[in-house]
This record gives sequence, structure tokens and C-alpha cells, in this order.
Amino acid sequence: MTALSAVAAYAAPSAKAPLERTTVPRREVGEHDILIEIKYSGICHSDIHQAQDGWGEGIYPMVPGHEIAGVVVETGSGVTRHALGDRVGVGCFVDSCRTCEYCKQGLEQYCVEGMTGTYNALDRNGEPTYGGYSTHIVVDENYVVRIPDALALDVAAPLLCAGITTYSPLRHWRAGPGKKVAVVGMGGLGHMGVKIARALGAEVTVLSRTLAKKQQGIELGAERYYATSDPKTFEDLAGTFDLILSTVSAPLDFGAYLSLLKVDGALVNVGAPEEPVSLNLFSVIAGRKTLAGSMIGGIPETQEMLDFCADHGIGATIELIRAEEINEAYERVAAGDVRYRCVIDASTI
Amino acid sequence: MTALSAVAAYAAPSAKAPLERTTVPRREVGEHDILIEIKYSGICHSDIHQAQDGWGEGIYPMVPGHEIAGVVVETGSGVTRHALGDRVGVGCFVDSCRTCEYCKQGLEQYCVEGMTGTYNALDRNGEPTYGGYSTHIVVDENYVVRIPDALALDVAAPLLCAGITTYSPLRHWRAGPGKKVAVVGMGGLGHMGVKIARALGAEVTVLSRTLAKKQQGIELGAERYYATSDPKTFEDLAGTFDLILSTVSAPLDFGAYLSLLKVDGALVNVGAPEEPVSLNLFSVIAGRKTLAGSMIGGIPETQEMLDFCADHGIGATIELIRAEEINEAYERVAAGDVRYRCVIDASTI
Repeated sequence: MTALSAVAAYAAPSAKAPLERTTVPRREVGEHDILIEIKYSGICHSDIHQAQDGWGEGIYPMVPGHEIAGVVVETGSGVTRHALGDRVGVGCFVDSCRTCEYCKQGLEQYCVEGMTGTYNALDRNGEPTYGGYSTHIVVDENYVVRIPDALALDVAAPLLCAGITTYSPLRHWRAGPGKKVAVVGMGGLGHMGVKIARALGAEVTVLSRTLAKKQQGIELGAERYYATSDPKTFEDLAGTFDLILSTVSAPLDFGAYLSLLKVDGALVNVGAPEEPVSLNLFSVIAGRKTLAGSMIGGIPETQEMLDFCADHGIGATIELIRAEEINEAYERVAAGDVRYRCVIDASTI
Repeated sequence: MTALSAVAAYAAPSAKAPLERTTVPRREVGEHDILIEIKYSGICHSDIHQAQDGWGEGIYPMVPGHEIAGVVVETGSGVTRHALGDRVGVGCFVDSCRTCEYCKQGLEQYCVEGMTGTYNALDRNGEPTYGGYSTHIVVDENYVVRIPDALALDVAAPLLCAGITTYSPLRHWRAGPGKKVAVVGMGGLGHMGVKIARALGAEVTVLSRTLAKKQQGIELGAERYYATSDPKTFEDLAGTFDLILSTVSAPLDFGAYLSLLKVDGALVNVGAPEEPVSLNLFSVIAGRKTLAGSMIGGIPETQEMLDFCADHGIGATIELIRAEEINEAYERVAAGDVRYRCVIDASTI
């Protein structure tokens, strides 16, 4: 690699256009940088939102991808955390201010200045960042995590977003033995939530629109599986859960979901509806309940999550696709038709 | 007292009528009951809501009052917790199922079957309950708390609702040394929130619509006092607080208030707008924030609060009124013109 080398990538040239093969520049490998040969890259629902400019202010051409698993092929002279040949991962951010109270606590995702997104962002030098739908990426070593040998790289890739997004709140709100946890939604995030909550020792229930994925939900570790399209679900489960983890981005009837919590229970959102939701405050006052949110996780916790998943034999349940299938995969993700994560084989880019 | 004695009281004959002097029945003093001679009764904003049927399903005639301080004048044969002459208080509820998991934990306010309200409710025998705007009340000893000698009864009365309503969430969300706490609203609840948060060792800021009560807020223990009518307040205080306790029942711009929290901060509501509020979930996702609620407190915690207030010399700041001034006081409470709690001298009923 030389300075600003061009690497192969799939990019959205604009918000309205499908992704296509192109090249994008990668910066020179600096003193604390490592060059990663990307092996696999997961497709997250938020890739689609951003590629289609659903949140606005998209930077084009855009190379999505923040669930990256690969191998170290070059290291800067000052690198100490990773070595040539190491199996590594990169998640949703590649930098942060490193000096604020949250960065110092390893909560870089909540950096006061804002984290630098792995793609669709400008880095600290004002250059656009390009994500994981690519053959190579250059990242500061402090924003790279180690993938344990026990985890295959293809099923590890989605852990970098879907895994940590569910692991972090499950840990923070103390999912574990004796706790009743509901996971709302059985998509890319939801299926990881079920696996991780079960591995943490909690009793897991899936709340999904229909029972279409019930058999698989049970196989992944859920003890119970209910359809939220059936009003009886909300009668049967009133006051049941210590924690509800909502992974859906459709706006929910929050009063109904809060009614499923025990006193002191928490409804934690990791999926974010674009529109504001309506909430009657009596839903939280009666029962001292919490409506909260959580956003991915910091670097130390992401490493902890990968180690936990390796120890418990947990990877994502994936469909491996070729790069030329990305646009088709986007349609299938949007339709909720993927079980449960599409992962791009980067050798096909 | 004999069975179903009539006692003097002030009651709302209907939702549209002012309160007037009347008599209401009190039950015979049963084996575990105590008869309390009421000395003082606070006027809570929710008394007005209920007297005017703001929440619907009001039971008339209605004798409001759930901030009751008095003296034990008769005890049932099985009473062990209180004795003749004891200074005692009664708060927002006078019974609960006593067998559910929450009652067993001393969280009777969240009883699965529902607590029995001190007024505007039907007791476990289906008889209407009548509150503290009265000369006497009969209450099961388990729902009566002891008022320490260090607290005068008049300033103790409002602690039974305003005190516990603020003490409980301040304790639950760990207000204390090193914590920055904001109290929204400087009314009956808010002024108690300031006093208690300060006594717990937290650094207290008041967020009030205007600076009209600033001097008193500082005197009560606030270090800082800001007007929420000034948009600059929200710029200056962004990311400042560990805990915001909202005591107002007007619907807030929750996005704006959540932006004042640090990462992992909590906005806890003890005031309840009647209308649903609108919330963009990004406000809680970005910063792992909590929007929560809390409702009064259980019997053990109410006793703990009274003991805490006695130890710290905390009573409510009150205006003592005569019973015939109740209707005028209602107008002043509704106008936010009371500093900070009207308390009825029950000897004038």
C-alpha cells in the first residue's frame, strides 16, 4: 500500500442509485494505523437507511459497512495492540476525541465531540470515511478489536454491530439468571439479542409481529415466542418482564409494551423510529418504569462481547452473499426476508 | 367513637361545586385500626385534579387530603405499632393487598391489585374512603407512619406526599455527593425536591419557568437557578446533569430536557401531564439515557424519609390556612401562587 491507494469497493453513487463496484482511496498506513484485508462485511439495516439518505446529510459516493472482519496485513511503526496476521474486527466507528470523560471511560460511542463513523462521516482531518464493503481498510489500532480464534470470521462480522448493540444494553440492564427478558423483533439485531440474553442466563421471550420465525427463535434460545399482532399477547404477558429490548425501528405502542414490564422494569430501544413516538407518562410513573435507549458499545466492551461470544460459541446466523448480490440483499433486508444477517464475502468484490 | 361515626369534614359535593363543610362516616375502630385526631392536612395539586374530576371517575361527595399529620386517640385491641398519643402520619394510601410481591417488598404503592387511595377510592369492603380534610380518620396501623418529635406536625404533613414523592426517586436514582441534580418546577413538590436533594449531598439546580422564585430557591438549598423560558438555559446546561427530577404536570419538551443529561443520566417524572407527550427516541439512544417515572413511596420508605427529614431539620415550607379558606387556596395552587404548600389547620374544620 502507498499513500491514498485506491481499493475496490461497492458504493452508492447517490441516494437514489443502486450500489456499484468502484474504487475508493485509503489513507497511508500511519504510525498507529493498521491495514486490514477485509474478509467479510455484514449488511446492517442502517446501511440501507444511510445509503438511501434516510437520515439526511449522506456523503456520496458512500461505501457502507460497519460489521467488518478481516486480517492484519500491514502495521504502522508504533502499533502495539495488533500484529501481522491477527484476526481483527472494526465496528461502527474508527475514531473519537480520545480526551473527553466518555472516551476515557471506554464509552467512545458517546464521545462529547462525536465518534467518527466508519463510513458516511468525515474523519478528524476532514476526509470522508469509507466502510466495509471493500477489500481493505486502514484504521487506527485503538479502534480495532481482536476476533478470538474460536469465532469464524464470517459469523463474527455481524457481532461488530448487531452483537454489541444487543450485548451492551443486556449487560447494562443486568440480563442474567432469574431475569425475564423479552426481545422485540427477530431480525439481525433481534436474533443476536436472543442468543446473547440466553447465554447470559436470562429467560428469553421473543415478541415478533407474527409466529413465522417461532421455530427458529426457540432453536436460538428463546423459551417463549409470542405474536404482537395478537392483542391477547399483551393480556397474557402483563407485568412479566424485567427487561424488554426493542430492536425494531417501527414506532411501537409504548404504553402497551411498558405494561408488560414488572415494577422497576426497563424498555430499552436500540432500534430508532424516524418519527417521534407518543407516550403517556403514567405508563412509566405507575411502576417506576424506565424507557431508555442504547447505542452500540465502546471498544473495551466490544472486545468483551467478542470474547463472551467465543466462550459461548455464539456467532451470527448468516447468509453469505457475493458482492454483486448487495442490491438484491438490500431489498430482502428491507422486506424482513433475511435469516438473519447477510454477510458479503469480500473476496468477490 | 362508635361504629360509622360521623366526623366533620370539607367535601366537594360534585365535580363542579366548591368544597363545603359536611360530615362523613368513619368506620368502627377494628382490631388493627387506629383512630387519628387530625391536626394538619396539606393541600396537594392532585387534590384539585381529583375534586374537579380531572382524571375521571370521581366519587362524590369527595373529602380530599392525603398529607395527614395527627395524634393517635384510640387503638384497636391488636394494635402494636402505634400507641395512644403517638404523633403519626398518613399518606396517599390506606391499604393494599398485602400479599403480592410488591406489597411484601414494602412497595405497596405498586400493589398488583392496586393500593387503596386515602380518598376518592373504595376500600377492600367496597366503602368509599374519605381523606384528610377532616377532624378524624380511622386507618389500619400498617398504613400509618410515625412522625419524629423533631418535626412539627404542620410542616410534617406535606412530607406524606410531597416529601416521599421526591425523596423516593432521589434515593432510587442515587442523588448524593458528586451528583448534579436538577429539579424542574418550584412548587409544592419541587421545593421539597430541592431541600431533600441538597440534604442528600447532591449539587442542586432549579429549572423553573421564570426566575421569580430564585432567591427562595437558593435559600432552600439550590446552588443554581435557571429560567426555562430562556433558550440559552438549554445551551448553557447541555450534558450537565446526572438526574433531572421533573415535578411539573405541564407537558415538557422532553428532547430539550434529555439533552441536559450526561451519558447514563435519567429524567424522572413525578408530575404527570394528562396528555401524551411526544418523544424522539434518539434523545435516549444517544447517551444511553433514561426517561422514567416514580409514584410516591412505600410505607417503609415513607418512614425512612420522615426520619431523614427529622435528622436534617427538613419540613415543608408552608402557609397555614383555616378550613374556610380551602376553596380560595385551590385557586391559588392552580395559579402557582403558593409558597410552597397550603396546610389546613384541622382545628378550624
